[in-house]
Amino acid sequence: MTGALKVGVAGLGVVGSALLRLLERRRSAIAERLGRPLEVVGVSARRPRNLAPAFMTAKFYDDARALAAADLDVFVELIGGADGAAYESVKAALGRGVAVVTANKAMLASHGVELARLAESKRVWLAYEAAVAGGVPIIKTLRESLSGNGIRRVSGILNGTCNYILSRMETERLPFEACLAEAQRLGYAEADPTFDVGGFDTAHKLAILAALAFGLKVDRDAVSVEGIEAITLADLEAAEELGYRIKLLGVAERTPHGVEQRVHPTMVPRGAPLAQTMGVLNAVTIDGDAVGALTLVGAGAGGDPTASSVAADILDVAQLPAQPVFGRKASQLAENERVPMQRHEGGYYVRLGVVDRPGAMAAIATRMGERKISLEAIMQKRGGRRVAGEPIAPVVIITHATTEASIREALEMTLADGVVRERPQVVRIERE
Amino acid sequence: MTGALKVGVAGLGVVGSALLRLLERRRSAIAERLGRPLEVVGVSARRPRNLAPAFMTAKFYDDARALAAADLDVFVELIGGADGAAYESVKAALGRGVAVVTANKAMLASHGVELARLAESKRVWLAYEAAVAGGVPIIKTLRESLSGNGIRRVSGILNGTCNYILSRMETERLPFEACLAEAQRLGYAEADPTFDVGGFDTAHKLAILAALAFGLKVDRDAVSVEGIEAITLADLEAAEELGYRIKLLGVAERTPHGVEQRVHPTMVPRGAPLAQTMGVLNAVTIDGDAVGALTLVGAGAGGDPTASSVAADILDVAQLPAQPVFGRKASQLAENERVPMQRHEGGYYVRLGVVDRPGAMAAIATRMGERKISLEAIMQKRGGRRVAGEPIAPVVIITHATTEASIREALEMTLADGVVRERPQVVRIERE
Repeated sequence: MTGALKVGVAGLGVVGSALLRLLERRRSAIAERLGRPLEVVGVSARRPRNLAPAFMTAKFYDDARALAAADLDVFVELIGGADGAAYESVKAALGRGVAVVTANKAMLASHGVELARLAESKRVWLAYEAAVAGGVPIIKTLRESLSGNGIRRVSGILNGTCNYILSRMETERLPFEACLAEAQRLGYAEADPTFDVGGFDTAHKLAILAALAFGLKVDRDAVSVEGIEAITLADLEAAEELGYRIKLLGVAERTPHGVEQRVHPTMVPRGAPLAQTMGVLNAVTIDGDAVGALTLVGAGAGGDPTASSVAADILDVAQLPAQPVFGRKASQLAENERVPMQRHEGGYYVRLGVVDRPGAMAAIATRMGERKISLEAIMQKRGGRRVAGEPIAPVVIITHATTEASIREALEMTLADGVVRERPQVVRIERE
Repeated sequence: MTGALKVGVAGLGVVGSALLRLLERRRSAIAERLGRPLEVVGVSARRPRNLAPAFMTAKFYDDARALAAADLDVFVELIGGADGAAYESVKAALGRGVAVVTANKAMLASHGVELARLAESKRVWLAYEAAVAGGVPIIKTLRESLSGNGIRRVSGILNGTCNYILSRMETERLPFEACLAEAQRLGYAEADPTFDVGGFDTAHKLAILAALAFGLKVDRDAVSVEGIEAITLADLEAAEELGYRIKLLGVAERTPHGVEQRVHPTMVPRGAPLAQTMGVLNAVTIDGDAVGALTLVGAGAGGDPTASSVAADILDVAQLPAQPVFGRKASQLAENERVPMQRHEGGYYVRLGVVDRPGAMAAIATRMGERKISLEAIMQKRGGRRVAGEPIAPVVIITHATTEASIREALEMTLADGVVRERPQVVRIERE
């Protein structure tokens, strides 16, 4: 413990560069904390970079795997991607008994259990605070601060791109496409936005949170995923009128059927902290049986906030004995139940294009009643139009708690009846 | 490490009872986590209580000091009060090398440095997550999750009683006294509410957060304190109109003059997470140089949430090496600068009773200008009345950033001029 803490940083993109700046800026505070200096002994990237003078002594590697084979105390993986150099170098480092700090949600969502087993067999850290919600310390909060709680639910805004788009749609009254284009212009969204707006990025992060909260094997395929592409201004306006706001949430929740893991646009009561989180921010609410609802809000991406979490992990790794990666031994993590969405229970918002003739509303209400779906509201909205010569009126329905299977069946029947003419928009409601 | 973790719980009030329930409910999960059972071997209270069957084996003590002398791994202090049995038993336990977990903010605010020195000399934990903001894990977040950050500011709603009263005043349009009486009826406020509504409870908690965030000696006397007693409905309404909400904040902030520590009613922009925290909830926003603004919101009091934090501390204490109590060695904590409020810089809201005659507004604006105070707004409000036969109009002023000394001087001069007839209401603004 007398020499410097030897750190290798693989990946010098936005986060890697921010981390090096942070380590330089906080050099003396970190040394005081550690009781010894922190030295970046090696960095890797595809191409050499000009490093700040403080890192001139760091050896440059053009292959992360070679860096992982160097004499290190901590290997920091900031390359990204589920496989390839990131996965291989992390495996190599752990295999040698070198602690790993990573921001790589895709890798953890795909290989989390395998890597956790490896880390635990070598009794070294695999730390990943930066992998979920950037600068927001949700991993440590779940793993340590709520260790006395039975967790009932974790729900969060885990993708800043989606939250930015939905926030802009609502405040500027602009359609999805316009806000997506704006997000792309500002660098908040990729040229191919599917990974973000389709909900897949959120699903990766949710799978990690679910593992930690409920002691499950990380399994991104256990997450039901729905993106925000189909959300319209009409939905946002109806939400507002009804006292809700639409957010893309990742929700992991203990139910009588097992732990549900789902990502979908969600109506959240406007007074809830998640509803009030606007723009690129991330927010996570944890419901624990002792603490109640605890919400963390902060920067979910960006170089500096992510580097903040990476730095905290490096300091933990240097000072504390290795913790089980997902809060309990990897060998004790439970299998996922993969609860099908059909069994989900909750309230629903439905927007329908209804044939504008007497008895149409009654026909819909009857179909709902047959499936024992209790309605909180059914209302015709302005903005009727003609489809194939027939007048179609927009109708919004809010249900009390029911099952996904019931609402889907009832809606199929209204379509079969010819009362509803287009595929209905369905948004799940989280009331708590 | 093979035997049970032996825990003694001093104090069986709301928090102590909730802790015992939690330890019973989560018994197997905690044992799995620890790799050994947790056993409550002793409890103390002024009078014997009926304990749940799970704790029948716990020995009862009517003196916490006697419990502190028992064979324990962790001494949990939930008695409260700065001195007396709490302080003496904690000192006794630490002196014997027994780790301490406490929820006692008053004791830490008064004796924190001394107790930290003692704990560190014995290399044992003095853990106190529950002492600030109840179930909200603000201590661990500051100490560990933001360890790579230079902290610029910590600001928070740390007293649920005050936040409840201000929330009710605003939503129900009721005066302070009525809301205080309601809070007392509901058990949110004590019969003598001074400690809460006068800001002193917030000041204790703020002193602890400031120590941790800025490496200072805990010193409750370094905190400038102003309560909420003087806040009126007129102020809340003016705040709303101007896009703010009034909250009792504790703020610790690095300034060119040193670290300011202050508790006072504050105008917070309505979009900020602190402004959106209503009712008895607590919320803390930390501004770090890497993470930016990070906010935690949750239950700041109550048995179960506080027990959640106590339980997390017990698990940390049992598993991790002792950390420096205030994030750095007690011997390295800096002296407080006790920055006088006169040097505070910021925006101000001022509500004045102004003599309703031509030139009065100009006279006030001139006095402000002489002190180089730049005005964002000066506006006469409705609701004029007669004082001693003279018409008095309410005027609200919002200033750009200035110093407390300047605004106080300018206001004194308007009083001396005879233009302003009553002591003005002054509320500081936090714009970020």
